[in-house]
Amino acid sequence: MPITICEVGPRDGLQNEKTLLSAEAKVELITRSVAAGVRRIEATAFVHPGRVPQMADAERVMAAVPRGEGVSYIGLVLNARGFERAARAGVDEVNMVVLATDTFSERNQGMTVDASLRAWSEIADRAHAAGIRPSVTISAAFGCPFEGEVAAERIRAIARRAVDAGPAEIALADTIGVGVPTQVAELVAAVRDVAGGVPLRCHFHNTRNTGYANAVAAVGAGVQTLDSSAGGIGGCPFAPAATGNIATEDLVYLLDRMGVATGVDLAATAATGRWIGEQLKVAVPALLGRAGPFPT
Amino acid sequence: MPITICEVGPRDGLQNEKTLLSAEAKVELITRSVAAGVRRIEATAFVHPGRVPQMADAERVMAAVPRGEGVSYIGLVLNARGFERAARAGVDEVNMVVLATDTFSERNQGMTVDASLRAWSEIADRAHAAGIRPSVTISAAFGCPFEGEVAAERIRAIARRAVDAGPAEIALADTIGVGVPTQVAELVAAVRDVAGGVPLRCHFHNTRNTGYANAVAAVGAGVQTLDSSAGGIGGCPFAPAATGNIATEDLVYLLDRMGVATGVDLAATAATGRWIGEQLKVAVPALLGRAGPFPT
Repeated sequence: MPITICEVGPRDGLQNEKTLLSAEAKVELITRSVAAGVRRIEATAFVHPGRVPQMADAERVMAAVPRGEGVSYIGLVLNARGFERAARAGVDEVNMVVLATDTFSERNQGMTVDASLRAWSEIADRAHAAGIRPSVTISAAFGCPFEGEVAAERIRAIARRAVDAGPAEIALADTIGVGVPTQVAELVAAVRDVAGGVPLRCHFHNTRNTGYANAVAAVGAGVQTLDSSAGGIGGCPFAPAATGNIATEDLVYLLDRMGVATGVDLAATAATGRWIGEQLKVAVPALLGRAGPFPT
Repeated sequence: MPITICEVGPRDGLQNEKTLLSAEAKVELITRSVAAGVRRIEATAFVHPGRVPQMADAERVMAAVPRGEGVSYIGLVLNARGFERAARAGVDEVNMVVLATDTFSERNQGMTVDASLRAWSEIADRAHAAGIRPSVTISAAFGCPFEGEVAAERIRAIARRAVDAGPAEIALADTIGVGVPTQVAELVAAVRDVAGGVPLRCHFHNTRNTGYANAVAAVGAGVQTLDSSAGGIGGCPFAPAATGNIATEDLVYLLDRMGVATGVDLAATAATGRWIGEQLKVAVPALLGRAGPFPT
C-alpha cells in the first residue's frame, strides 16, 4: 500500500519556530515540496494573528502557492470565522483540531472538548456546503501535558462524535511526542471501529525518539496518510534540534527502504530540509541531510 | 517477554567520541549504568592502543568495575592476543566482530571475512576453554559503506559458519545506521534459521532516524537483547548530536511505555545520559533528558 505524505512544515513546523519567515519564503518551502513530489500540504492556519504571528500572512501564502500540479492545500481553522477566511483564500481542505482533554482544550482553544466538537461540526457543515473537504485532528491523543494518560476509550468517543459531521478524514496526533507503537495500534483500531470507513491520518512528533517507530506502526495498522515536516522543523524552542515533527526526508528514507511508495523524491526532499534549516538558522533535527542516503 | 539492555557506551559509544575520557570516568559511567539497573555492559575493547587510543586503558577499567551485582562485562576482542588480555582482565564475556563484506573487513581488520571467521573460531575455542562466554557480532549486516547492499543470504551464510564455533549469542549490527524494520525481520529470520537456538542480539545506530523503529522490530521478531549507549553517544565526529547508538534512556522510555520490561530505571539512565554528555562536552542525541518523561 502506498502512503501519502502530508507536508506540515509550512504550518505546524513553522508555527513552533521562533524565526518569522516571509510569505515568499513560505511559498518557496511549499514550491520545493511540490517539486519533490509532495501532493498534500498543510499550507497555513487561519487563526488570530495576534495569537500566532507566524500565520498572519495566511492569505498571502495561499494566493501564491503553485496550482495545477494536483496538490491539495489544507488550511487549519478553529471556528467559522477562520473557515470563511480559508474558503475565500482558496484552500482545498480545512482541518480542525479537537484536543483530547478538557484541560488542554481550555488552555489552547478556550473551550471544552464538547464545545470544540460543536465548532468542528459547524465548520464541517460550512465546508460541505462550499465544496471543501473537512478533516478533523484529535490532538494530544497519545498523552496530555496537563492530564497525562488519555484512555483509548476517550479517543474512540471523540472520534464517534466527530464522525457525525462527515469528515473526509480523521487524524490522530501525538502533539507532545509521547506515543509508542503499541498505542498507535490501539488508537487506530479504536478510531477505525467508529469511523465508518473514513480514512485515517497520523501525526507524530519525535520529541522522545519514538516518532519514526510510530510511523512504521501506523503503516502497519493500515493508516493511509502520515504528516511530516521538511527538516523535522517544529521543535519546542527550549530544545533546539531535538524535537519537532518527524522529518519528511527521514520518513521518505524509511519508507523507501521498506518498499513503501510515497511518490516523494528523497534527494529533493533532503535538499528542502537543508534549505529550511538555513532559512530558520537552525540545525534541523532531520538526519538524512547530514548522513546521506543509502551507500551505493 | 522482557528485553535485556546491553550498555555499549563505554566501548562503542566512547570509541567514536573525540574526547578521551579517563579510566575513572569510564568506570563512573559503568557504575552509574549498574546503579540504573543495567546488568550487561560492553566495558571496553582489548585492541591495539595505537589504533584505538580511547581503549588503551582496558585493563585499568576492568580492574575497577563494580562486581557482585550480577553484571556481565563484555570485552571486545579481535584476535587471540586480545582474548588473552581480556581473560586476564577478568571479563565475563568476549565479543568478536565479523564484518559482513570483504571490503569493509579488509579496511577495518586487515583480513577477509573468511579469515575473520577463522579468528572468531579460535577466540571461541579459547573462551570455551577458559570458561568465558564468547559472542560474535555480524557488523554492517544492514548495509556496507563500501559495497552498499548486503544480501540476507550472505548474513545467513556468515551466521551458519559462526555457529560452528559455539557462540553464546549472535548479534546483528547496523554499524552505519541504514537499516529499516523490514530488514530487521528478514535478517533475524535468516540468522535464526541457522542459529540452532543460539540467542540473538541486535545493535542499532540512529544515523538516519530508523534506530528506534528497528529496535521495536527486533522486539517483535523475538530478539532477546538490544544494545544501546547512555545518551546515544558514539556519533560520527562530522555530525554532532546527530548519530550514534540508540540511546539507553530513549530505548527504556520506548520499551517502558510499550509494557516491555527491561529492569532499567528511566530517571537514573536519563541522568547518566546527561552526565556523560557533560563529560564529553557534547549535546547528546538522546532526547529524554531534554524532553522529560511521560507527563503525570
